[in-house]
Amino acid sequence: MTTPYTYQASRAAFARALQVIPSGVYGHLGPVNGVHVPQSAFPVFSERAEGTRFWDVDGNEYIDYMCGYGPNVLGYGDRDVAEAAERQARLEDVVSLPSTIMVDFAELLVDTVASADWAFFAKNGGDTTTLAVMTARAATGRKKIVFIKGFYHGSAPWTQKLDYPGVLEEEVANNLYVPFNDLTALERLFAENEGQIAGLIAQPYMHGNFADNVLPAEGYWQAVRALCDRYGVVLIVDDVRAGFRLDLAGSDHYYGFSADLICFCKALANGYNVSALCGKDALKDVVGGLSYTGSYWMSAVPFAAGIATLEKLRRLEAPRLFAELGTEVTSGLVKAGAEHGFELVATGEPALFYLRLADDPSLMLHQEWVAECVQRGVFITSHHNHFVNAALTAPDIARTVEVAAEAFGILRQRHPEAGLR
Amino acid sequence: MTTPYTYQASRAAFARALQVIPSGVYGHLGPVNGVHVPQSAFPVFSERAEGTRFWDVDGNEYIDYMCGYGPNVLGYGDRDVAEAAERQARLEDVVSLPSTIMVDFAELLVDTVASADWAFFAKNGGDTTTLAVMTARAATGRKKIVFIKGFYHGSAPWTQKLDYPGVLEEEVANNLYVPFNDLTALERLFAENEGQIAGLIAQPYMHGNFADNVLPAEGYWQAVRALCDRYGVVLIVDDVRAGFRLDLAGSDHYYGFSADLICFCKALANGYNVSALCGKDALKDVVGGLSYTGSYWMSAVPFAAGIATLEKLRRLEAPRLFAELGTEVTSGLVKAGAEHGFELVATGEPALFYLRLADDPSLMLHQEWVAECVQRGVFITSHHNHFVNAALTAPDIARTVEVAAEAFGILRQRHPEAGLR
Repeated sequence: MTTPYTYQASRAAFARALQVIPSGVYGHLGPVNGVHVPQSAFPVFSERAEGTRFWDVDGNEYIDYMCGYGPNVLGYGDRDVAEAAERQARLEDVVSLPSTIMVDFAELLVDTVASADWAFFAKNGGDTTTLAVMTARAATGRKKIVFIKGFYHGSAPWTQKLDYPGVLEEEVANNLYVPFNDLTALERLFAENEGQIAGLIAQPYMHGNFADNVLPAEGYWQAVRALCDRYGVVLIVDDVRAGFRLDLAGSDHYYGFSADLICFCKALANGYNVSALCGKDALKDVVGGLSYTGSYWMSAVPFAAGIATLEKLRRLEAPRLFAELGTEVTSGLVKAGAEHGFELVATGEPALFYLRLADDPSLMLHQEWVAECVQRGVFITSHHNHFVNAALTAPDIARTVEVAAEAFGILRQRHPEAGLR
Repeated sequence: MTTPYTYQASRAAFARALQVIPSGVYGHLGPVNGVHVPQSAFPVFSERAEGTRFWDVDGNEYIDYMCGYGPNVLGYGDRDVAEAAERQARLEDVVSLPSTIMVDFAELLVDTVASADWAFFAKNGGDTTTLAVMTARAATGRKKIVFIKGFYHGSAPWTQKLDYPGVLEEEVANNLYVPFNDLTALERLFAENEGQIAGLIAQPYMHGNFADNVLPAEGYWQAVRALCDRYGVVLIVDDVRAGFRLDLAGSDHYYGFSADLICFCKALANGYNVSALCGKDALKDVVGGLSYTGSYWMSAVPFAAGIATLEKLRRLEAPRLFAELGTEVTSGLVKAGAEHGFELVATGEPALFYLRLADDPSLMLHQEWVAECVQRGVFITSHHNHFVNAALTAPDIARTVEVAAEAFGILRQRHPEAGLR
């Protein structure tokens, strides 16, 4: 039996954080808000990271399946990427003129991503979704944007809901919503708003929070592409989360269609800070005509890191590797659950697997299981998809499954009848 | 006489860039768009930077008064900052949990910035102006935001003008505009919109483009503060550009007033990628209640760089140094102009001086002079304020004045009657 971790240093640091930072830690890295499991079951601050692991401020070690919520694609501190970044840093980073390494990176993306005739670099994933929507509006002279229900496209006000604080009705007034995989609803929406819809923005599949992830139905994307063409709607793929984990040519390519605009961020440079909007030639001048920039957007170091990352992902044939590793992890976890009479459901693409326990609508059992795993060194979460990185090894996966089994055993002792069919 | 630079490598690289990047180089780093001076008079790409200098891809060396448009505050590649960043990079950067160095940096900002009871970190200056506006709206339940004419608060759609491509009328429908230093107009606007104005957002003084920079009139900010208090309007200072160059306690403190929210970015970490919204305790929970985050927002390396930057700025008493250096540069440049019968007008704070030639409404002469300076190794611009960094030396300034004088001499030969009174 593994001794469960404790988090004295994390709790003390969080108390300090609450004094000087709103919510202490905000956004997706905030402490896990368990509905049933107390926050004290989770660590709050990390101290060191390497490969597929990080260590928290109490010295606890984790095999990490969140990967910084995406950016860790090759392993924390990957030396090939770090050395390329360090080499560039010795030359220059943020200067009054850009480095030609920006052009090198754009050329590499154009060479790699199927729907990329050009690349525009920024810093947040949300910088690229906002630019994509502005581009669609400028290109069409129309206002409305179609969203797929369950979407996440960043945290700019236009991506939020009307009932969220600080968001105006005007900012979301031109947003239309349609369910995923529902072509009838989409065609009706397009017809009802003919000549008014500038763009459709969508993740390549539904990897939303607190819900099973949903893959595209057979033929769905091809039909969406055809509808966008028929109605003159710009098709925007938000590949911030899945990008480069399914297919280095883009997740649209993976599902057999071609976006007009595609947004990349997380996996682009193994944690170095860069995002990119790529797209078709027909929209290049439109993008060039927009007023859009930021203080650090042409910093050279992340471009060097991005080139090294993409070249290594190519050498490793990383998407195939991620699918294999993700499948091995989830099949091991599902088997561990079954051995204790629990049905663990894994959804979404294996490289970004989502987990929940069956027959647990309140997520109570699932959260308990997640907490027991985390307290034994397997960093997973109860409400968000996970991420696989290339540094994950077979022994890491074996240890993960061992910990998961132990956590299921504890759950079974505590809830003798739960989930049994 | 100095041999003017040529830019074969820059032009060749720009031709490559045009193939794969919209506009080749976009935003504020785009090639100088001279109205009268051809782009070929300016370099486009840099290759190396150190201290107060950078070298372009043709090997030409520049004393740089643009400082990456702000981030270079201590000198390019400052070793104290770089070593702190490298130390942190060996531990971790973007991980699934933040580092406590985020808390350390927040504590240092709270200790340094007069109107900071807390800090919220992001990546772009525009991330913080958007967050500030959302906070003002959430705190007041009101919609309207007052802008000072000539403003720049980033490139999110709400900061743009209705006639800019990709911007909707809905996105700017709640923006009100008032001239700077005009208390009568502001009081009238507040009275006419009583109970509807959430916030006023303003730079600490007008450092706009293509116009002399304008300092606040005596008593202006104190009166604005009193009006905001009277009408329940959140006072937001956008210190992205001037922050830490006038006063480490904030530019509001420098001008003797206290903002409710203050936005920092450029000078925060000597080029490492971080921005911060700071503010008063009364708004802390409002910020904590917003949905606002980004993929890289808690990366540890820029926090380490930020701490090292701010500590060094304190040791150097940098704002006093910047004022002295800026005054020395501008007085030298003005004197060099006078020696050739040109009146060079320097406006704004010396640390961020703005230049134009008198009696030159078309900017024709000024652009010519700027081009001659750039082609001799003094990197200045014709339409934007400049920036001083702490690595600038007396010999650098002497060389700058020498080059400027030579450029004025060329101008005088070419235009014997221009500007003479």
